[in-house]
Amino acid sequence: MIHTDLCIIGAGPVGLFAVFEAGLLKMRCHLIDALPQVGGQLSEIYPQKPIYDIPGYPEVNAQDLVDNLMEQAKPFSPTFTLGERVDHLDKQEDGSFIVSTSDKTKVHAKVIIIAGGLGCFEPRKPVVENLGLFEGKGITYMVKNPETFRDKKVILAGGGDSALDWTIFLSKVAKRVTLVHRNETFRGAPDSAAKVFDLANQGKIDLILSANLKEVSGNGVLDTVTFLDKSKAEIKIETDYLIPLFGLSPKLGPIADWGLSIDKNAIEVDTRDYSTGVDRIYAIGDINTYPGKLKLILCGFHEAAIMMHSAFKYVYPDQKLSFKYTTVNGVNSF
Amino acid sequence: MIHTDLCIIGAGPVGLFAVFEAGLLKMRCHLIDALPQVGGQLSEIYPQKPIYDIPGYPEVNAQDLVDNLMEQAKPFSPTFTLGERVDHLDKQEDGSFIVSTSDKTKVHAKVIIIAGGLGCFEPRKPVVENLGLFEGKGITYMVKNPETFRDKKVILAGGGDSALDWTIFLSKVAKRVTLVHRNETFRGAPDSAAKVFDLANQGKIDLILSANLKEVSGNGVLDTVTFLDKSKAEIKIETDYLIPLFGLSPKLGPIADWGLSIDKNAIEVDTRDYSTGVDRIYAIGDINTYPGKLKLILCGFHEAAIMMHSAFKYVYPDQKLSFKYTTVNGVNSF
Repeated sequence: MIHTDLCIIGAGPVGLFAVFEAGLLKMRCHLIDALPQVGGQLSEIYPQKPIYDIPGYPEVNAQDLVDNLMEQAKPFSPTFTLGERVDHLDKQEDGSFIVSTSDKTKVHAKVIIIAGGLGCFEPRKPVVENLGLFEGKGITYMVKNPETFRDKKVILAGGGDSALDWTIFLSKVAKRVTLVHRNETFRGAPDSAAKVFDLANQGKIDLILSANLKEVSGNGVLDTVTFLDKSKAEIKIETDYLIPLFGLSPKLGPIADWGLSIDKNAIEVDTRDYSTGVDRIYAIGDINTYPGKLKLILCGFHEAAIMMHSAFKYVYPDQKLSFKYTTVNGVNSF
Repeated sequence: MIHTDLCIIGAGPVGLFAVFEAGLLKMRCHLIDALPQVGGQLSEIYPQKPIYDIPGYPEVNAQDLVDNLMEQAKPFSPTFTLGERVDHLDKQEDGSFIVSTSDKTKVHAKVIIIAGGLGCFEPRKPVVENLGLFEGKGITYMVKNPETFRDKKVILAGGGDSALDWTIFLSKVAKRVTLVHRNETFRGAPDSAAKVFDLANQGKIDLILSANLKEVSGNGVLDTVTFLDKSKAEIKIETDYLIPLFGLSPKLGPIADWGLSIDKNAIEVDTRDYSTGVDRIYAIGDINTYPGKLKLILCGFHEAAIMMHSAFKYVYPDQKLSFKYTTVNGVNSF
């Protein structure tokens, strides 16, 4: 059993900054995330993309922001359980909680902070027979390590930024990249789309537009993918990998069953302290909702700072919180 | 008359970030500040101090943060009126406003955003007879342009960062600098204090410690300042200028008369959009108050983002706001 003051569910940018704000008030944090690394969407979906709306950063690479937030949290020695999904929450008699994960890790905490972003992300899957047969055997929904695809034949399917960016990137790594999209135009960034058209014109990738996935087949492992073109003619392509990049679909997961007030996949909170309707449970970042809410990282940062001043009373019931500026007092690590 | 969409009163960190958030929604900003430079307290009071609680910055020098916020606002070409205090606000028939400053500058804007920090800072003045007689005639409380003091005799009084920093700076500009402080030690940064002691040891400035201002005199313009030392002996110094740097005292100023709801020197706002009780006037940053408010820069950043989505309707009454992420769309400058 891990013992901590605050258990933060979600190790994205807002969860990480919450560690810093908690630390200023001398509260310790343990973070749990279903993803195998910290950073949430930033590290998982767009690590190399620039973000322009973090205050004080005219431009910052998503992964750099995550690294900086980790550095900022470091004086307060957070601990982590990564790659495990939170499953159960058991209220104890003294008001504290025991959180259990999919891998049976148990965390005892005085306060729960849900900083789960848009929830557990699950890839949107194409509706094709036998898809499940080849998952992990040629079909994957995420590029975790581009080296997996070195000198392999890869088919990417999709029309958004992920599909375009990975097509561009993998064109330099894979033996052959084919991008298949059901429309004639792309949803992703115009300059990425332009690059993809260039690569196709130069013969460096195969681009198949207005085509839909029809069939996947193989003997134990994927070897052929069949598409239907506009005229319903079959296009069969031999491949080592098929990567459908149809976006991620947020799921609230087991949190939905904790008695919280949920509105459209988000947890309703009180803007005075971002508390949920359930005592000692707070929700911050993209996972919460309130009148005027914007799903911006910078708003989650604010929510983290505010809620810590409310959570303090559960960790130090006998102390009065005294508020001090870091410019005056610096950061005193644990 | 200057014409703009939004008139931001206060060019501190929150006012500057508001320009960026406004720009994302294609709204133009003009900023007015009583101080002679942007950055508010950060640039005026502690430019060289590190701040530790800006999200994503484990440590950032106050002036660097201001510089970065200016850089971030730059694509949206904000305009500025600096060194002038906002005096009047006149509501027009169409709901817009004309703002007038102490120097008769007039700004026409559709929306007013008060980002005035702790209010207009007014210099703390020494309690000495006839002080008012020489204000602007040898006595000044702010170094707006160091060139004013070139080859002049200057007395600085005070023991904080401003007094130390300007002593160091003006020692290279003025004919002679005398720093007078009532204590033996300085409140300002230790390395600035060390530099000042060095300058005094090298004979480059005169340093008078444990002395208090007693009298100012002159014939129309200041020519002599009298101090009392520890033993109550008089020290008379001939000078062209006396600059008392005893810190700034926050005052809400004329804003207090605009019909806003004020609680303890702060403007009460609605947390849904940080609007004040008066139509088309918003208040963000340290100058506002609401249940749970923390006077943190990062909270002002959040308030700026949220309020812009509400102000949009006054600038573009016929358009529907469509919210786009910078990671997807980038920043499109004016």
